[in-house]
Amino acid sequence: MLDLTVPARQTSDFKGDAHAFSQWAEHMRPQVETHLAQVIDTAMPLEIAEQSPLKAAMAHGLMNGGKRVRALAALAAGQLFGAEPATLLKVASALECIHAYSLIHDDLPCMDDDDLRRGQPTVHVKYGEAMALLAGDALQTLAFSILSAADVGVAASVQVKLLSTLAQASGAAGMAGGQAIDCHHVGQAMTMADMQRMHRLKTGALLQASLKMGALCGQPTESQWQTLDEYAQHLGLLFQVVDDILDATQDSHTLGKTAGKDERAEKPTYVRALGLEEATRYADDLYESALRVLQVSLTAQDGSTTESVQRLADLAAFCAQRVN
Amino acid sequence: MLDLTVPARQTSDFKGDAHAFSQWAEHMRPQVETHLAQVIDTAMPLEIAEQSPLKAAMAHGLMNGGKRVRALAALAAGQLFGAEPATLLKVASALECIHAYSLIHDDLPCMDDDDLRRGQPTVHVKYGEAMALLAGDALQTLAFSILSAADVGVAASVQVKLLSTLAQASGAAGMAGGQAIDCHHVGQAMTMADMQRMHRLKTGALLQASLKMGALCGQPTESQWQTLDEYAQHLGLLFQVVDDILDATQDSHTLGKTAGKDERAEKPTYVRALGLEEATRYADDLYESALRVLQVSLTAQDGSTTESVQRLADLAAFCAQRVN
Repeated sequence: MLDLTVPARQTSDFKGDAHAFSQWAEHMRPQVETHLAQVIDTAMPLEIAEQSPLKAAMAHGLMNGGKRVRALAALAAGQLFGAEPATLLKVASALECIHAYSLIHDDLPCMDDDDLRRGQPTVHVKYGEAMALLAGDALQTLAFSILSAADVGVAASVQVKLLSTLAQASGAAGMAGGQAIDCHHVGQAMTMADMQRMHRLKTGALLQASLKMGALCGQPTESQWQTLDEYAQHLGLLFQVVDDILDATQDSHTLGKTAGKDERAEKPTYVRALGLEEATRYADDLYESALRVLQVSLTAQDGSTTESVQRLADLAAFCAQRVN
Repeated sequence: MLDLTVPARQTSDFKGDAHAFSQWAEHMRPQVETHLAQVIDTAMPLEIAEQSPLKAAMAHGLMNGGKRVRALAALAAGQLFGAEPATLLKVASALECIHAYSLIHDDLPCMDDDDLRRGQPTVHVKYGEAMALLAGDALQTLAFSILSAADVGVAASVQVKLLSTLAQASGAAGMAGGQAIDCHHVGQAMTMADMQRMHRLKTGALLQASLKMGALCGQPTESQWQTLDEYAQHLGLLFQVVDDILDATQDSHTLGKTAGKDERAEKPTYVRALGLEEATRYADDLYESALRVLQVSLTAQDGSTTESVQRLADLAAFCAQRVN
């Protein structure tokens, strides 16, 4: 008799564990914070620092209890490819400087005009608009300063790639370009494709760069690099969709910033475009896609994964399930 | 009989010629402008550029008929040490991007609140504050993008030095740090030493970096490098003192920006600290010092100079004698 039973398709046990990621993050975050504090501390010689509140304003914007998702993404990707921990901390710091600069400038009255950021007064509320503007400017520069220093610990050719990746992701064809599209479309309808692109630039590009920069410090093969790139694209979008969902569903206390601002400012968001239910489903799809990419390419034949592949899955779960 | 006549000390013919520099600048500026236009043109892919006025705002801030002193300084120093013209144009563009970003942000209402820049409406007047903020941000990033691109034409180790020099000169320990001190001391007395330091950061650092970055693209010896550094310090200070003098003595039409603003804003300036006459004498001294450095170190035994050494003297004369 012909056996028509198809062997049950091996259902994978490969899932992300947000809790496991949180635990790892708890462990890594203090190292990132310590390094960031050093970075700010050495950004200006004393005789310059004591002449203005610039350093304090930069520190206020940078050391504000953020989740450090970009830093953690760089660390996770770097560990996967055997990068040096000291080098990864430098990359992580540069990424957090760029992120902090963008938040300081976003919060300014001419942009989102936000008084609250992670439960604290924003930089311009505390130090005035001029100092906030300069603190953002100087944090951007600091990112490039960190990566071009003599002590990064990778070959000059890798340093140049790190610098180039960061510049591409954060400039006119990346984060700043996405911000500009966002500003320009307040109150206007946007096609789903245009909104997708805007978000890919505004949030996705830097998160993607974080993973790539981490990987650049190690030794990925060409195919691993492709996999990481694909995973990074899903993760970047996922992060933004969840951001939009949180803005629409969480209170300000949980978010640590003013909730519901996108809606009131008539900003183009996924929730606005798709409705809450569909946006949530979309986030789920992106999460599954990210996992699938990792599973197909980075797990062994027998389905086993290394700790560091698992960490990327956990990062995706963390991004999908976060509440602020 | 003992000959007591001391041979007449050779009086040097080594002087700067501002007019000669202007002529050379007329010749070089179109190349810089063409390159800047290309840089803006390729900063964003079309599908991103057409979604917001960011590119137009960046172009308005960058392509505004500036003197291109920083670009010209880099070209002059680079030519002295045999650097590749194509590489120098990239370095020059990066410097002008940083300078343009600083002007756009300086002109914002929360800073100098200036409506006019080189006879044109400032970027925020034309494109709004949010877009001006982002245009400045993106121009800063663009500078680092240019220098970290694959086509700069120097070894990766030199690229890293270029990037590091630019970041140091423009960040918290350079231009942005100087701006912060300036903002923080409006209406306050400052010691001459503190003011000196502020200006060294605010204007001097980037001008100095321009010369150094040009030189880095060539092959200076260690002693030539030292000479250039010393010359650059004098030139940086000279430029700022003349800036202060012009603000106090020229009309807005000649300056192409609002004249007398420093005085009205009670900003610490050399004119305010020293009086106009003494400030003018100080500028003369700095000019002479710059020439002396070049003469002692870079002219041949017989007093002859190469064309490119002469150009640095001419640059100093140009900075000393400019009217806007």
